Amino acid sequence: MWVADVIESGKNRGSRQRLTVRKVVILAAGRGSRLRERKNELKPMRRVLGLPLLERVVLSCKVAGLSDFIVVTGYKPKPMRSFLTRLARKRSVRIEVVENPDWEKGNGTSLLACRGKLTEPFVLVMGDHLFEPGLLAGLLRVGSEDDSCFLAIDRRTERVFDLRGATKVSTQSGRIRAIGKDLTRYDGIDTGIFLLTPAIFAPLARVQAKGRYELSDGIAELAAEGRMRTYDIGKRFWLDVDTPRSLREAKRRLAEQVDKPSEDGFIARYLNRPLSIRLSRLLAHTPVTPNTITVVSFAIALLGAWLFTRQGYLPVLFAGVLIQVSSIIDGCDGEIARLKALGSRFGAFFDTILDRYADLSIAAGVTYGFWLTHPEFWVWLAGIGALSGFLLASYSKKEYQLRFQKPSPSRFLPRLAKRDLRLFVIFLGAVVGQPFFAMLGVGLISHLAVFWILVRGRRR
Amino acid sequence: MWVADVIESGKNRGSRQRLTVRKVVILAAGRGSRLRERKNELKPMRRVLGLPLLERVVLSCKVAGLSDFIVVTGYKPKPMRSFLTRLARKRSVRIEVVENPDWEKGNGTSLLACRGKLTEPFVLVMGDHLFEPGLLAGLLRVGSEDDSCFLAIDRRTERVFDLRGATKVSTQSGRIRAIGKDLTRYDGIDTGIFLLTPAIFAPLARVQAKGRYELSDGIAELAAEGRMRTYDIGKRFWLDVDTPRSLREAKRRLAEQVDKPSEDGFIARYLNRPLSIRLSRLLAHTPVTPNTITVVSFAIALLGAWLFTRQGYLPVLFAGVLIQVSSIIDGCDGEIARLKALGSRFGAFFDTILDRYADLSIAAGVTYGFWLTHPEFWVWLAGIGALSGFLLASYSKKEYQLRFQKPSPSRFLPRLAKRDLRLFVIFLGAVVGQPFFAMLGVGLISHLAVFWILVRGRRR
Repeated sequence: MWVADVIESGKNRGSRQRLTVRKVVILAAGRGSRLRERKNELKPMRRVLGLPLLERVVLSCKVAGLSDFIVVTGYKPKPMRSFLTRLARKRSVRIEVVENPDWEKGNGTSLLACRGKLTEPFVLVMGDHLFEPGLLAGLLRVGSEDDSCFLAIDRRTERVFDLRGATKVSTQSGRIRAIGKDLTRYDGIDTGIFLLTPAIFAPLARVQAKGRYELSDGIAELAAEGRMRTYDIGKRFWLDVDTPRSLREAKRRLAEQVDKPSEDGFIARYLNRPLSIRLSRLLAHTPVTPNTITVVSFAIALLGAWLFTRQGYLPVLFAGVLIQVSSIIDGCDGEIARLKALGSRFGAFFDTILDRYADLSIAAGVTYGFWLTHPEFWVWLAGIGALSGFLLASYSKKEYQLRFQKPSPSRFLPRLAKRDLRLFVIFLGAVVGQPFFAMLGVGLISHLAVFWILVRGRRR
Repeated sequence: MWVADVIESGKNRGSRQRLTVRKVVILAAGRGSRLRERKNELKPMRRVLGLPLLERVVLSCKVAGLSDFIVVTGYKPKPMRSFLTRLARKRSVRIEVVENPDWEKGNGTSLLACRGKLTEPFVLVMGDHLFEPGLLAGLLRVGSEDDSCFLAIDRRTERVFDLRGATKVSTQSGRIRAIGKDLTRYDGIDTGIFLLTPAIFAPLARVQAKGRYELSDGIAELAAEGRMRTYDIGKRFWLDVDTPRSLREAKRRLAEQVDKPSEDGFIARYLNRPLSIRLSRLLAHTPVTPNTITVVSFAIALLGAWLFTRQGYLPVLFAGVLIQVSSIIDGCDGEIARLKALGSRFGAFFDTILDRYADLSIAAGVTYGFWLTHPEFWVWLAGIGALSGFLLASYSKKEYQLRFQKPSPSRFLPRLAKRDLRLFVIFLGAVVGQPFFAMLGVGLISHLAVFWILVRGRRR
């Protein structure tokens, strides 16, 4: 029974995916004339928030577990080939380039050009269709239970970005009945993401012999035989980027994807994050790395900490503004890392440690500044109390996670002890001229949060 | 290939263990006359470092994955039954009691009394043989590849504790040739830990019909048919506890087992741990829980922190002694937890958080004490520097572990930033009247350790 379970689950867990689906075909032969061409920048190289469109497609496939590509080129094959060679090296993937001289006839010819190279099921995607990795991973899972051909379709027909230009499909019990741009009755949209077997090539060749060169002509032929199934992508993200308007939409949607509402505190969610994402969208176009942003945010916090030790309202106000600015910029390192796939475990580690040193410096600066006008020992003890609250609130969350192997619950009190609120309250305190007492307040809340986390640990 | 691998590993990973070996038979029928009997305390109830012998046997089996027991009683069955009922409830295991009226004839009759209840392979252990769980787990792994009967034997014949009283075995190519207390030529010692199949019962009944009632008589009969294999326990711990001398040895060996040399810092290893283990051996006989010890250690540290704020050499010296005492006692909570199987994830969590608050209080106390005679602001800033070093050295180790999913390397510098050395150096500082500067020293080392951990993270 137990051994049988293992075999069974071994099959379900994607024997097809692991054993047979290895290759991804990317069609990138077209001219992309609706997107204004920049000097020497072909459409697949067109940058969206700092990364070429085609690189984003390759990355989504890689995250979904596939890293062996065939890219079909047509328009200006030479610069494409050198771009693809660099891309393969940069992202550690295999890319075979197939040149399709007939690319202008229609994109069906580009797939047919790969005929001899594919003997197993494969994934087919478009070089200009962005999608989230989970979409492809889901398709591979479903495909692993069935040997059919699949088209990933979007049922949210009314919400599709460019409905006029989209390929529509009409389905019945999970199979495609009709497909085309001009269908009047349809219940899904072709996302351009396919799981195919070499069975596609015969019908494709057949329709091309009759002068129909689009990919959807071949798909329609296979569908007519009842052999084309559908995969419902649910609410997952995809976008066909082929006009300046859809390029803008892509930037907006990608920026949304890097949001982390579940982990963010209140201030991060409603104030810092909206601002930092705007900043990240600008920074994405520059070569600035996440670690550089981490260091800059830290330096600004240190400057703020030093300014708190100056006398007078203006320096203190400016100090408050600086630490709030630092808090906002502190979101950008992670966002840039996610936007440009530059994330590293060291980067996250480095950011966390510098955050603690920044908190510590700010607390020391605020305390020293207050002590200058109130030279009494309790000021220092209270400052130490607040400072240790900041460090221990962070510490006890990590410790909880290590001991219980799950994150400490993100409830009201621990959220109040997060860094976003901590710095924001000190900033507000600086605005009203009382950063010290504002700091004591959040310090106290931080110790309460530690106590709350302890009690939670006791209950487990 | 991949699916085949899974099936194969599924088989190896203990299909027999998981599927068939479920029951453990414990022989606990004897009088144990060589261990002086206390009032109403039969031998299996005899406490070793706070836990009854039989409870330790049950716990070792439970840790090895088995929690369904048959305990054979003979001498004074009534108090044994109520003891076993309580034990089953306390440790959440199933215990079936089999009374053996013939127990005085020999321990073979006790095993034979279970004949009708065992239809699958089972583990047989003695109620007075302590062993570490890894020994049984290893036996189960070997047994899962082979349907034979196995006896776990100790090859270190010259190091066996009570060689005279031990049952010796003579082996050949992994099988037992001869077994008995009076063998003159032997190459192994019977540990009393068996993996048997119901095939043992026929030979056992046969020899008993001829008037040989010891278990080893039955084993010898099976061995004569070439059906008794051996399992070499290597260097693992086991001990037959049947004399006052072996009881003392058991306490010594159990206390050794709770040592954690790999995780301990220098002071913990050579000073604190030897002392705390002695203390734990005493505390194990009391109902004191690990969490109580955690709180007491914390309270002593707080008292020390407060004493650092008093003026004069004597209070400061006493403060130093208190924090060193607290540091030693801080080892006992974990030791008692391991000695008495009282460990909990909350206990470890609670201890760690209170340790941080203790460090913080001590640093604040030392700083305030020094500031009283040197009322200058840099004293506080330096104190904050040291205090934050203590907290951040601990923090960065946790963070490293979370990000890289392995403990931060325990090299020279991070070991210098551990709590044992931290408190010991401040104690030494107090002895020479300079706790503040001693603290600044270890604080600086702690920050260096944080930097070192960051650099290690960068290299990964």
